[in-house]
Amino acid sequence: MTSSNLDVVAIGDAIVDVIATAPDSFLAEQGLTKGAMQLLSTQQADALYAAMGPAREISGGSAANSMAGVAALGLNAAFVGQVADDQLGAIFEHDMISLGVRFETPALKGPPPTGRCLIVVTPDAQRTMNTCPGASHELTPAALDEELIRSASITFLEGYLWGPERPRAAMLEAADIAHSAARTVAFTLSESLCIGDRRDGVRGMIDRRTVDILFGNEDEIRHLTDCESIGDCIAALSSKVGTLVITRGADGALAAEDGSVVEIAAAHVEKVVDTTGAGDLFAAGFLAARCRGRDLRASLEAGTTCAAEIISHFGARPEKNLRELVRP
Amino acid sequence: MTSSNLDVVAIGDAIVDVIATAPDSFLAEQGLTKGAMQLLSTQQADALYAAMGPAREISGGSAANSMAGVAALGLNAAFVGQVADDQLGAIFEHDMISLGVRFETPALKGPPPTGRCLIVVTPDAQRTMNTCPGASHELTPAALDEELIRSASITFLEGYLWGPERPRAAMLEAADIAHSAARTVAFTLSESLCIGDRRDGVRGMIDRRTVDILFGNEDEIRHLTDCESIGDCIAALSSKVGTLVITRGADGALAAEDGSVVEIAAAHVEKVVDTTGAGDLFAAGFLAARCRGRDLRASLEAGTTCAAEIISHFGARPEKNLRELVRP
Repeated sequence: MTSSNLDVVAIGDAIVDVIATAPDSFLAEQGLTKGAMQLLSTQQADALYAAMGPAREISGGSAANSMAGVAALGLNAAFVGQVADDQLGAIFEHDMISLGVRFETPALKGPPPTGRCLIVVTPDAQRTMNTCPGASHELTPAALDEELIRSASITFLEGYLWGPERPRAAMLEAADIAHSAARTVAFTLSESLCIGDRRDGVRGMIDRRTVDILFGNEDEIRHLTDCESIGDCIAALSSKVGTLVITRGADGALAAEDGSVVEIAAAHVEKVVDTTGAGDLFAAGFLAARCRGRDLRASLEAGTTCAAEIISHFGARPEKNLRELVRP
Repeated sequence: MTSSNLDVVAIGDAIVDVIATAPDSFLAEQGLTKGAMQLLSTQQADALYAAMGPAREISGGSAANSMAGVAALGLNAAFVGQVADDQLGAIFEHDMISLGVRFETPALKGPPPTGRCLIVVTPDAQRTMNTCPGASHELTPAALDEELIRSASITFLEGYLWGPERPRAAMLEAADIAHSAARTVAFTLSESLCIGDRRDGVRGMIDRRTVDILFGNEDEIRHLTDCESIGDCIAALSSKVGTLVITRGADGALAAEDGSVVEIAAAHVEKVVDTTGAGDLFAAGFLAARCRGRDLRASLEAGTTCAAEIISHFGARPEKNLRELVRP
């Protein structure tokens, strides 16, 4: 392996979260499924936004949140994602760069605008996400900086970007570049990838050994493998991905690697406020610890500690000093 | 008095707050005076923003925050202020309307963009505000809806808008309209109005009996009157304003009216997180209670209860159900 000046580069949605609290009845009125993520057209997003209460805006995007976490943990991170040349795009860029994340993807001139995710947080702290991806889904393979990807120990790919064709092509090209430089490719599943028509494409990618580290929650992994027990899920995937990491919400997380399985409990949280970003920050902690050469158990613990920080406040970007909490 | 369908209409800055935490050393590096508000050019604001850490965006503006509070308390509120036709303007408008505040000032086409206030919150929860007013200072008397103002029991004017010429003219015209309909005019001081060249203009307005309810903190009232003791300040102003309300931070608040003075302690706060908006929400509680016919003590208490809610979290818009806390 050549020496690396970058720990992790991520490719994902570049969006700003618009977060409002609401009672459960609001989800019913709007026909929203609690805890799910759905894509909205501009018109649908405008209608939902008009019905939502006063909101706060915090930069988001799943893999971008992970890179915010990796940088906050003191590692070198970069992000590739598409914003537009507008106010939300400037906010997204500011927040990445001010965290020390390299972010050099040129802003898109002209429509669509920077993407946003309308997030409804119910009193049980669950988040229901309604994404209007905007410019985010205009990412093309041309946006990739080959040298940047070659220089990163890990290339981290966001499942939400697998749906649209050009961003998917960009992610597959990035995986090829990373592997040609003997680097590691990580992929985080999203629910919609694991059901319906898209599942075959994702399975095919995994069968072709595109993914070295696969992140998913229990439901996603079960849908992807068509297996019921976690043991069967692990058996189905362990020959195809080097490291399989499964998050289990309040029940903690587990990882399978080289034939052994390590399981840990969730970190204690005083009061869960907003679960947005729990998986993203888990991935941040896990990847940062891996980059620092920590073992599987220590990496899982770094993940659950970061996840615990993010769910104790609104928004999916870290507020406390993660480096003091975790020391990856 | 004619019957009213509106309790309070406010005229003020229409801006979005950009809030980041920072150590005290950041204020020193940037030459910022803790707790103060300064106006920035676009260039200065861009430079400061680049130096700030990751931020959250929450709709703000002093009098707009007050109207958010008045509406959250269950009263009828309206706001007059100038945004631009851009993303931050849309966020500001959404947050007002979703709170039930009437907001009908048409967005400005073309530059400057919607104003923003870069707020640095230090570990002691003090906020240092750096306002780039943008479209906000383009408000003209033509934006006033005379019927709207005539219909409001109280017209509330924001001191920050006194500086620029056209918004000042709009506020003075609104005061004339309100008085011609036998309504009450309230005015909230800002520090810069009470010192230097601007002080004479503010004193002149007060001498001409433009203000029925005057809000200020201790420092502002002292600078305005050139008096040292609070007793002397009250004596200097009580013949010119019907109701004088002085906020004293952690020491509570007092009010003078019809020759009597009422003083109360601050409401208890578990943990002060961000003092942004304390004065704005104090005014909301006080004005709402006044509109409901409560006495001076009850009105002060409504003010301090609202202020206590706002300083217990980031941002100057209420998060808890103020109506349950206060019952104005």
